[in-house]
Amino acid sequence: MTLRVDWRASVSLVGTVVKWLSVPLVFPLLVGLYYGEGISTFVTTMVVAVVVGWSLERVEPDPEMGAREGFLMVALTWFAVSIVGGLPYVIAGNDISLLSAYPYLAVQSGPSTLAHPVNALFESMSGFTTTGATVMGDISFETHSRALLMWRQLTQWLGGMGIVVLAVAILPELSVGGAQLMDAEAPGPGIQKLTPRIAETARALWKAYLGITALEILLLFGLHVLGNVLGTPLAPQMTFYNAVAHGFTTMATGGFSPEARSVEAFSAVVQWVIVPFMIAAGTNFALFWHVLNGNPRRLFEDVEFRFYIGILAVLSAILSVLLYTHQGLVFVPNGPAVAGNIESSIRHATFQLVSIVTTTGYASMDFNTWNSSAQYLMLGAMLIGGCAGSTGGAIKIVRWLVILKSFRRELFTNVHPEAVRPVRLGGRALDERAVRGIYAFTLLYVVIFLVATLLLFLDIERTGPNINTLEAMSAIASTLGNVGPGFQLVGPMNNYLPFSNSAKLLMVVLMWVGRLEIFPVFVLLTSAYWRS
Amino acid sequence: MTLRVDWRASVSLVGTVVKWLSVPLVFPLLVGLYYGEGISTFVTTMVVAVVVGWSLERVEPDPEMGAREGFLMVALTWFAVSIVGGLPYVIAGNDISLLSAYPYLAVQSGPSTLAHPVNALFESMSGFTTTGATVMGDISFETHSRALLMWRQLTQWLGGMGIVVLAVAILPELSVGGAQLMDAEAPGPGIQKLTPRIAETARALWKAYLGITALEILLLFGLHVLGNVLGTPLAPQMTFYNAVAHGFTTMATGGFSPEARSVEAFSAVVQWVIVPFMIAAGTNFALFWHVLNGNPRRLFEDVEFRFYIGILAVLSAILSVLLYTHQGLVFVPNGPAVAGNIESSIRHATFQLVSIVTTTGYASMDFNTWNSSAQYLMLGAMLIGGCAGSTGGAIKIVRWLVILKSFRRELFTNVHPEAVRPVRLGGRALDERAVRGIYAFTLLYVVIFLVATLLLFLDIERTGPNINTLEAMSAIASTLGNVGPGFQLVGPMNNYLPFSNSAKLLMVVLMWVGRLEIFPVFVLLTSAYWRS
Ligand SMILES: [K+]
Ligand SMILES: [K+]
Repeated sequence: MTLRVDWRASVSLVGTVVKWLSVPLVFPLLVGLYYGEGISTFVTTMVVAVVVGWSLERVEPDPEMGAREGFLMVALTWFAVSIVGGLPYVIAGNDISLLSAYPYLAVQSGPSTLAHPVNALFESMSGFTTTGATVMGDISFETHSRALLMWRQLTQWLGGMGIVVLAVAILPELSVGGAQLMDAEAPGPGIQKLTPRIAETARALWKAYLGITALEILLLFGLHVLGNVLGTPLAPQMTFYNAVAHGFTTMATGGFSPEARSVEAFSAVVQWVIVPFMIAAGTNFALFWHVLNGNPRRLFEDVEFRFYIGILAVLSAILSVLLYTHQGLVFVPNGPAVAGNIESSIRHATFQLVSIVTTTGYASMDFNTWNSSAQYLMLGAMLIGGCAGSTGGAIKIVRWLVILKSFRRELFTNVHPEAVRPVRLGGRALDERAVRGIYAFTLLYVVIFLVATLLLFLDIERTGPNINTLEAMSAIASTLGNVGPGFQLVGPMNNYLPFSNSAKLLMVVLMWVGRLEIFPVFVLLTSAYWRS
Repeated sequence: MTLRVDWRASVSLVGTVVKWLSVPLVFPLLVGLYYGEGISTFVTTMVVAVVVGWSLERVEPDPEMGAREGFLMVALTWFAVSIVGGLPYVIAGNDISLLSAYPYLAVQSGPSTLAHPVNALFESMSGFTTTGATVMGDISFETHSRALLMWRQLTQWLGGMGIVVLAVAILPELSVGGAQLMDAEAPGPGIQKLTPRIAETARALWKAYLGITALEILLLFGLHVLGNVLGTPLAPQMTFYNAVAHGFTTMATGGFSPEARSVEAFSAVVQWVIVPFMIAAGTNFALFWHVLNGNPRRLFEDVEFRFYIGILAVLSAILSVLLYTHQGLVFVPNGPAVAGNIESSIRHATFQLVSIVTTTGYASMDFNTWNSSAQYLMLGAMLIGGCAGSTGGAIKIVRWLVILKSFRRELFTNVHPEAVRPVRLGGRALDERAVRGIYAFTLLYVVIFLVATLLLFLDIERTGPNINTLEAMSAIASTLGNVGPGFQLVGPMNNYLPFSNSAKLLMVVLMWVGRLEIFPVFVLLTSAYWRS
């Protein structure tokens, strides 16, 4: 047992990750080159990432990681990456890049709300944590270049499977202690070791992630090409750029879209194609690894996966009926016809429900037009979350499964007080400490949700905007659960701009805390962590 | 261990309690005689109670109670008492009493919404469970006699300290097994045995309850008399009838008032006097027993009581500021001046916050006029609840205290995984099963709250009324937590009449489940309960 936290070791490894962030920045740089948009934004950010990262590494040239250092490293990494990853927004918005004197390298970007550092941090944290809540005033290639929007999409893809998991997969200096780091990044249900060496497990997860993303991109763009070949508009808007963008943000359960009206901009076929990929993104990626290794039955034998599919099916069915029977549905002049249309009702209900439960956050239509019942169902669905080991956020399916099973156990022991009965999951008896941890996490999540909503209301008293309970609760549930959109003011076609800077910073913290599943951040607030 | 549930024993004891319900019915009967209102309603109900109770007792002439029979007996008792106790509403409303041929004994009551059996059951369950939600269309002596309204107030006082506790206190046949029954009626934190014999403990609790109720009645009526003597309007509306009525429903944390506009009808002095009695009603009555036995320090040494006072103080202060600064407060032409008025802001904030946290449900003003922030604070406060061993409902202070302490423990064991650290409460280490039970209860409470709100919304789809998220959530939180009023449609000056019969029956079940703290009802739904 170490006597004190070696914060220098943590900071040094944060520096390593920040330094390596310059590599994915090559991608939007290439996009910028291709579209002739100028690259100085990204070159500047790469320079900053390398310099800052290298400097932080100097704090401790030979870092040794224990469990405590792991919490600090993971928590700091996500914040540091969000700050550095938000620089392109500030640079592009303010045109302060180092190379702006050279016109052919110049930034191509109109006046942007992201020029403000708080907005840039919000957008960046929303990206890496795969939340997808936006403070972009105007989502368009005219205001923000194609390259900058691609960076926005890429941050979600990087954050989806986990920045630390990626770091463990490719950085040899993290092969020792990597399991602890990966556990800290996704602490709840724990990482399944797929292979004896943790770096190989991390690589396996990232390979599955990469493979399914590539498959989605191919399918989406393939539809576009096929439509052109056949002369029918199968997916007219789904250009290669859009296919890549939505591949990134579907598989990350991110939800950012370069289209201002999200997936409403695309055809019904595209919407149907995206649904199974959202479901896959909310599935434990370790199961895909088993499938790829010739064990397809592992997928359907998994109790969490079966429960997940069951929840999606039942809630989608309820929502379909609500939309079809349209009681109280607001009439939208040019909106998609839903009420009374079977295909449309089922499609929008399924798409939207899957999008919310998996915490993707895409919108196939403006669900602000739905009635209170449908909106309440969606608000509740924001608490559910994806499977353990998926890219989805919120409370997560496995926790709900354990909680429901433990309710049965509790009722049983009320009748049979002398009985000792473990909670079983997939035939395996769970350790009582694991059950306790799941209870504590879920209740803490609910308490944070309730208290943060109160804080938001207190902030609003000073600064506005005047919002109702549903709006406030949905904004908090959506950022804490890394979902993205909320209702009304923060509806899927709107944004989080109306909030004050203090409210936005509150939500930045919620996205960060939600992505790391509370404990890695909250332990840093206890004296027990810092004492020897 | 018994092999099967002896349901006959449970039913027989339910019969005993129903039979004895005829005794408290004497009180409204006397009130009716005094005001010359006719007594046939209560005579009829007494006859029914005795006949039904006696018949049920015949099911098993010599009942023997075990733990399992206790759950069934307690759950059935509360439902049976609510049904029989609701008869006066149906009889008075429909004028179907046995004695209506004799004019001097006739019912004096106008056409009443309570004539409908579902409404009568709702009002009766709301009474006994001390919820205070009403489906009376018009609360007045003209429509409902003084006697009937006094019965309504008395049901809350009977339910407050617990019907089963009262039965254990006075029925010798319950002296064996009484502790189990009292535990089943208030299962969560457990009854403190104050004396070696459980019947004496039950009597001690009821004596403290009776004493404080009498004190409040004297104080309230004393103010009225003093005002008359001094010639100043201290409490002009607080007649002896009103003093008794509010004494009953304050100490029960019930919230029924014979005044249509609740405690808004009374002077500021009366409102201030009621506040400490609401606080007392939300306190563990065992502490008062200690105080009365010469141990006043026990009150302030109690960690739950201190936490309770702290919560009330902090939340009242926040609410006072919200009301005083009046951001977004709706202007009410003839309403009480709050914004900008220090005394009025503090009084209404304190009164209303205490009323909601203790689950009393009185209103000192129509908080439907408050803004979203203040209403959200009140919605959250509905989940808190009174102390263990109080007459208050909802989740209860001691559970929140244990949960917050266990969060600290969980954060500690995240850093020190090898540590074994019990949760301590007032210097005592809690059993892990107790902590687990508290977690399970609280999460189950939250899940029931979320699911019941969805059920309410699905019901509304068929039948209306069209309500928003806040209205639906507040209606469910308020009935499940035995609070009483909600917001907007179900605000403190409104009622639950607009809901369909199915929605009302859902709420009847929620009030019942909430009062018995879930488990005694839910265990009846498990196969493990009924199997040998
Ligand atoms: K998302
Ligand atoms: K109440």
